[in-house]
Amino acid sequence: MADRRPARLAALREQLTAQHLDALLVTGLANIRYLTGFSGSSGLLLVAPRELVLLTDFRYETQVVDEVGDFARVSIQPQSLWTGLWQLLPQAGTIQMIGFESAYLVHRDFQRLLEQGGRWQWRPSADLVETLRERKDPEEVDAIADAATVAIAALERTLPQIRAGQTELAVAGILEHALRDAGSESFPFPSIVASGPRAALPHARSSDRVVADGDLLLMDFGASVRGYCADITRTVVVGRASLRQRELYDVVRVANATAVAGVRPGTSGRDADALARDYIDRCGFGDLFGHSLGHGLGLEVHEAPRLARTAEALLPEGAVVTIEPGIYLPDWGGIRIEDDVHLAVDGARVLTDFSRDLLELT
Amino acid sequence: MADRRPARLAALREQLTAQHLDALLVTGLANIRYLTGFSGSSGLLLVAPRELVLLTDFRYETQVVDEVGDFARVSIQPQSLWTGLWQLLPQAGTIQMIGFESAYLVHRDFQRLLEQGGRWQWRPSADLVETLRERKDPEEVDAIADAATVAIAALERTLPQIRAGQTELAVAGILEHALRDAGSESFPFPSIVASGPRAALPHARSSDRVVADGDLLLMDFGASVRGYCADITRTVVVGRASLRQRELYDVVRVANATAVAGVRPGTSGRDADALARDYIDRCGFGDLFGHSLGHGLGLEVHEAPRLARTAEALLPEGAVVTIEPGIYLPDWGGIRIEDDVHLAVDGARVLTDFSRDLLELT
Repeated sequence: MADRRPARLAALREQLTAQHLDALLVTGLANIRYLTGFSGSSGLLLVAPRELVLLTDFRYETQVVDEVGDFARVSIQPQSLWTGLWQLLPQAGTIQMIGFESAYLVHRDFQRLLEQGGRWQWRPSADLVETLRERKDPEEVDAIADAATVAIAALERTLPQIRAGQTELAVAGILEHALRDAGSESFPFPSIVASGPRAALPHARSSDRVVADGDLLLMDFGASVRGYCADITRTVVVGRASLRQRELYDVVRVANATAVAGVRPGTSGRDADALARDYIDRCGFGDLFGHSLGHGLGLEVHEAPRLARTAEALLPEGAVVTIEPGIYLPDWGGIRIEDDVHLAVDGARVLTDFSRDLLELT
Repeated sequence: MADRRPARLAALREQLTAQHLDALLVTGLANIRYLTGFSGSSGLLLVAPRELVLLTDFRYETQVVDEVGDFARVSIQPQSLWTGLWQLLPQAGTIQMIGFESAYLVHRDFQRLLEQGGRWQWRPSADLVETLRERKDPEEVDAIADAATVAIAALERTLPQIRAGQTELAVAGILEHALRDAGSESFPFPSIVASGPRAALPHARSSDRVVADGDLLLMDFGASVRGYCADITRTVVVGRASLRQRELYDVVRVANATAVAGVRPGTSGRDADALARDYIDRCGFGDLFGHSLGHGLGLEVHEAPRLARTAEALLPEGAVVTIEPGIYLPDWGGIRIEDDVHLAVDGARVLTDFSRDLLELT
């Protein structure tokens, strides 16, 4: 497999030059993983013109060698990573102005820069690595597609096991077990299994509510493969669907299909959102679609770009994004259909190839 | 059940007075939950002398009413919570000096305080709410004990299903399914199922490695009930144990038992750590116990106090902490036995009541 790290690092260094930064201190863990391959939960990365230094702690001594090899100079710190940084920085060449990631540095650590790093100048930066991550390499798309395949395999195994009388937590257990058996490395976010009126809560988790005959059952869950996430939602009916359920389901289904058919590289995030929202509006349910249409997907389950009313930016070629319109009727229930799509040059390619028809589990 | 929130809030306000703070902006989500009951993933809490204002977004409109009731003034923000803060702050009385949580505010948001909150003075604060959280109320101990019961029930159901030839991920799937069936609301951290030489990695996750006959199998996992976490580790042998496995297991078992028997309120974190470490040292394996003995447990799976060589502070009565000595031999394997204990006035009460004998799964 091609090693994409040199090209990523070169692109980042170009950005640093353009912004008159001598170096960048990377503290966002997904950014560190993108640049070096290191997947641990503790790290500091210094990107300087001629140096790339990764600091982590003793717990990752073996793992960091496997993942990073000799691509970066790795330094294992017995105590604080910051102590190590102050020792290593003076050896990294003539550096004056250093950028830091404003969204991934808590104030306590920012204070360290001012107090212990006073011989350098520090400037907040935003989205330098995140912007590179928007356009996926072929290997990244493959990993997300593999994660989507895992998610679908798990859903296929789970649906025949669902019965009225089970709790949402029990359904989540079946689903998560199937995800592990299909090879999911982790759960990128807490699985949502929401039934009946609870499906109307846009941020429900799984609860001990007992699923009843005739309930809508909304399942929103993720899978991860080689560090990359898939994120899929399907809504089914446990038993026979009512006319009202069919009616609302159909609105969401068409909104999803319309957005998938219409979105492409160069569409703005706002126009992409409107593809689904305008249709739901015209059907008279605009007030019941309270969230945005979707988000980028990659090493993190929520990343750039955004598909939302307030998102002016154009969606870049190569991005992988979710398309997830929904309708939520308080005290009645909710319906969401979420797919992951790759924005290829000729349009959106769906990675979550699983039926969008209304399934009745009988 | 007694509502502990008024007492917690009163204790916090006393601390604010002592530190000459007129108010505190709480951004740590576990701190917000502790003070108000709100469990959402988006919130800002302002604690002023005569006001308690919780800002969250539309996704939590229903949930926040259920969880917080009229204990706080709740404000649902259509867009940014910060916009809401700048509107509400002027109505919160004569406030000049406001503390903020230095460990839970990223630099980007700290900049907002300076740029948009310029009519107030802002002072970083640390551990104000975290210190209150160290001493658990009886209801909190009950919740952790219930989570421990869930974890043990899941382990009991899982062990008879483990076979050589399964992957670590498959074992994790069985375990997590059992956790859900037993009622775990979430997985407080990614389950570690590490077999054979992988058990030597102090921060292994579950992988696609196939478990072999004779392998050590280390399982470190959590459960959560009513927001509170349990955290338990057991190490078993798949098949018959070797003499070397028995020998090292016994060292860890005695280290665990010695620490549990010896720790009590008023022991320093360092002395608690030494209870286990000195024994492992005397057995000649001191270099192979590379992490600290334990940590506090509550709304978060890692919280104050610490049981470590560098922890001077005394363990308070009422804390719930883990006791988790281990021995890790690179390329051979690792053994850890982790229990959760409540530091009651007369000593440590074990909440994770599950055998510490070496189990051979045959």
